[in-house]
Amino acid sequence: MKKNQDQKLRIIPIGGLGLIGMNMTAFEYNDSIVIVDCGLAFPENDMLGIDLVIPDVTYLKENFDKIKGMVFTHGHEDHIGAVPYILKELPVPIYATKLTMGLLERKLTEHGLMKVSKRKVIRQGQSINLGEFRIEFIRTNHSIADAVALAIYSPAGVVVHTGDFKVDYTPVFGDAIDLQRFAEIGKKGVLALMCDSTNAERPGFTASERTVGRTFDNIFSEHRNTRIIIATFASNVDRVQQIINSAYKYGRKVVVEGRSMVNVISTASELGYLNIPENTLIDMEQMKNYPDEQMVLITTGSQGESMAALSRIAANMHKKIVIKPGDTVIFSSNPIPGNEKAVSKVINELSMKGADVIFQDAHVSGHACQEEIKLIYSLVRPKYAIPVHGEYRHLKAQAEIARNLGINKDNIFILKPGDVLELDEESAAVADHVQTGAILVDGLGIGDVGNIVLRDRQHLAEDGIVIAVVTLEKYSNQILAGPDIVSRGFVYVREAEDLMEEAREVVEDAMQGCISHRISDWGKMKNAIRDSLGEFLWKRTKRRPMILPIIMEVE
Amino acid sequence: MKKNQDQKLRIIPIGGLGLIGMNMTAFEYNDSIVIVDCGLAFPENDMLGIDLVIPDVTYLKENFDKIKGMVFTHGHEDHIGAVPYILKELPVPIYATKLTMGLLERKLTEHGLMKVSKRKVIRQGQSINLGEFRIEFIRTNHSIADAVALAIYSPAGVVVHTGDFKVDYTPVFGDAIDLQRFAEIGKKGVLALMCDSTNAERPGFTASERTVGRTFDNIFSEHRNTRIIIATFASNVDRVQQIINSAYKYGRKVVVEGRSMVNVISTASELGYLNIPENTLIDMEQMKNYPDEQMVLITTGSQGESMAALSRIAANMHKKIVIKPGDTVIFSSNPIPGNEKAVSKVINELSMKGADVIFQDAHVSGHACQEEIKLIYSLVRPKYAIPVHGEYRHLKAQAEIARNLGINKDNIFILKPGDVLELDEESAAVADHVQTGAILVDGLGIGDVGNIVLRDRQHLAEDGIVIAVVTLEKYSNQILAGPDIVSRGFVYVREAEDLMEEAREVVEDAMQGCISHRISDWGKMKNAIRDSLGEFLWKRTKRRPMILPIIMEVE
Repeated sequence: MKKNQDQKLRIIPIGGLGLIGMNMTAFEYNDSIVIVDCGLAFPENDMLGIDLVIPDVTYLKENFDKIKGMVFTHGHEDHIGAVPYILKELPVPIYATKLTMGLLERKLTEHGLMKVSKRKVIRQGQSINLGEFRIEFIRTNHSIADAVALAIYSPAGVVVHTGDFKVDYTPVFGDAIDLQRFAEIGKKGVLALMCDSTNAERPGFTASERTVGRTFDNIFSEHRNTRIIIATFASNVDRVQQIINSAYKYGRKVVVEGRSMVNVISTASELGYLNIPENTLIDMEQMKNYPDEQMVLITTGSQGESMAALSRIAANMHKKIVIKPGDTVIFSSNPIPGNEKAVSKVINELSMKGADVIFQDAHVSGHACQEEIKLIYSLVRPKYAIPVHGEYRHLKAQAEIARNLGINKDNIFILKPGDVLELDEESAAVADHVQTGAILVDGLGIGDVGNIVLRDRQHLAEDGIVIAVVTLEKYSNQILAGPDIVSRGFVYVREAEDLMEEAREVVEDAMQGCISHRISDWGKMKNAIRDSLGEFLWKRTKRRPMILPIIMEVE
Repeated sequence: MKKNQDQKLRIIPIGGLGLIGMNMTAFEYNDSIVIVDCGLAFPENDMLGIDLVIPDVTYLKENFDKIKGMVFTHGHEDHIGAVPYILKELPVPIYATKLTMGLLERKLTEHGLMKVSKRKVIRQGQSINLGEFRIEFIRTNHSIADAVALAIYSPAGVVVHTGDFKVDYTPVFGDAIDLQRFAEIGKKGVLALMCDSTNAERPGFTASERTVGRTFDNIFSEHRNTRIIIATFASNVDRVQQIINSAYKYGRKVVVEGRSMVNVISTASELGYLNIPENTLIDMEQMKNYPDEQMVLITTGSQGESMAALSRIAANMHKKIVIKPGDTVIFSSNPIPGNEKAVSKVINELSMKGADVIFQDAHVSGHACQEEIKLIYSLVRPKYAIPVHGEYRHLKAQAEIARNLGINKDNIFILKPGDVLELDEESAAVADHVQTGAILVDGLGIGDVGNIVLRDRQHLAEDGIVIAVVTLEKYSNQILAGPDIVSRGFVYVREAEDLMEEAREVVEDAMQGCISHRISDWGKMKNAIRDSLGEFLWKRTKRRPMILPIIMEVE
């Protein structure tokens, strides 16, 4: 069968672009689709009560037959977290490097999904054929081991997708990013580069992960007489390795606390990504057998998450660990935007209990800064630039970098989720738009909380609810019971008895008004209650609680 | 009457210490109390629906007769904002410098409180006698003009309270901080220094406000062909002055947008704190008469506040201003901790509309960094150090600075609101604790929203509410109507009709169970409904909405 030489490559961001998290992109050529990553997002502040957010994959379900597989760049939640939800609907083969696959399999096991689809572990440097595509996994560096960039070969040209990456010439685990291979592919001609924009606003170079190890050594040597507690990201295996190295060097035992931390560490050490000297890691229960100056506790909660171990420790709500004056607590992390206040709260609580809190120089980013981005562009020399990963401002900052490197303005594309970019050597343009969006997951419900429910939660959160309930006699519409007024989240009722009694009278008047005007339509009656009670409460309190009239009927 | 020479000075933080905002401190000696500042705080994230927070002044009400007056360090909301609420309960004379008083009087006028108490404008450098105290107002620099530190002279010794301050050798308005006077007072002997801790974690020196003017000049000269929009703090009069200077220099007209900005600018220019060249300030309505390259818009919203002008402009919800591609938008501000995400949202929205957003080098802090703090300590040389202004972590950072400067650990006090520090030349100790706290203001209600109401709002925000209502026949307890199930903020009901019908059956079963067991106590019936319905919904949805049983009774 002769290939249609006019066929273009289609790149479709399903989620992620311009949003934090929920990274998922479809590459389509002819009757082949390859999916890159399948991440979740954490809820925004106004998504009240929502646990997590996953991408709407309607387009992929409609084109299920074309999908040849799902490939992954690395094992972070914003790249693999939606898999247990999406794989049920799209049972397609999955391809990932060893650690990424280990973390994926832990999720699939938890959700009972190990048999849903085929899985294959790919080495850094290896290539696979998926339909009309060939996908090459190129070694990179990131804040988790086994990260890869992807070279996506299609008959229309090659796309290089960096995934999340940084350039670390002296990584803690494995080798430095394979810059030679980027150069080699670039030399042969690359259609488009999809490059990580997270730090595109930051000048310079991101420091090597190894520098954090030196900071740990310094801190350990300066705090020989205190217990050391270090909070970091559960997934940062190299960071954990460096803590273990310093602990071993300074004769300390290590305890790990926090479910996600324990999970990642056990997966990573099973797969050989963590090198733990014998008798270094001990159980929480053994802690009491060692003096403070021989202990290091590694914990979750570096982002001030209220249920994480460090937050519970700081709030004196942890069952086994109590902060003592003199404890050294290290935040080996920067607050992710939006978490600053929560982190500060934890720092304040720890300080009040006498802990010495250190939060400087104990972290480096896992993402490329401006000079690294320029380096990748200069090696790959793409025709088209498609900034990915980051908020809109970050994508725009990378677009600016690309322009300064001489890429034509018309060849730079900041895509929105659902945009279909059609491209080949001749031209590139957004040619279509498909359905995408954010599906909210709340408890077991996937997608059953939408805008109306969120708006109601927002309203309830602001001023609470006032319920007016009344029982009427059928046909006559005489009031048999009530109206009663019940409120929640509005005012402290014991101190507002008069207000509530007046509110009851207002509703009674409204009902009598309806009855004397022979209004028997419940909708109209409810509106009369809502209007009169709403106006009364606004006048008296300058608040607008949700007003919910309930009418019952007795024959 | 002979003075009791053994009497100690009592320093009582009423609000503020370790909290952001709500700055208010009482100084008590014998039968004299002087209050310094009376600020409000903005609600924390978990204070749902709350408008603002003011200090609980129970202790001051109980000692009203002793209060000789209230003095103010400067005109920011966290130092003057609670006055309209507190002055009703504590109608005491107020003393402030001219601009601070102008801003206070605007508030008092709005609240109809101009006749409640005596007011006196004090010049920088002047002193006043209040009971057994003498208060000297010492010129400082801050991000608002007319800021002062206070030297508080009592028979037990002198306390220097810096207020919010920085050291600006080249301020935009007025003179540099009166370092000579700090030195002179220090030379004579100072009992305690209460020094601003906001930037105590930051090394070095805060740059002069004047450096921002140079940045504006650069930006104006580089963006001669576009409209310029600058967001900054409404109260930063010197910043506004510098924008006006650059606008005038580059031949642009200035429009001011945002209620608080218009208020502060009109007060400041009436009182001579702003120098606006003729024909430079124009009304929004005149904007259409000038081309974009001759316009500067100064606006509120630099913190991403959702109702502020810039946020409405960014969201395309402003009546008169629409962002055009090429507009230059400058954030002359840093995000206050907690606002980072909201600010980023506005930057993203502006970028998406094609605006060129600048947020670097266009702001300096109004607070002293470590070197300035050391300078003040070295001039004042206090016996006791009492860090003020900032979160606990910042107070602790200043305590560390004080220790490094040689102040004895036992002479450094990090106080909590309500702590009573008794001190004189001989000794200092926290000797007592009085009632203080945060009073929540929601609409017209002051203090009628407490923890129960907030907890309910939190619960409602998480998972919504499910109401089960039933009408019973009196005496027989037979069900006459219902049970009906009504929910808000729980699930999208149209897609959950089956769930709701099952929930109704669960409640009906629970009621029948009560009836068949001859349970007629409403409390027990409601518990039966709450338990069975709660369990059912948890099992089916893994959510815990608030469950509200309502029973009505018909004779």
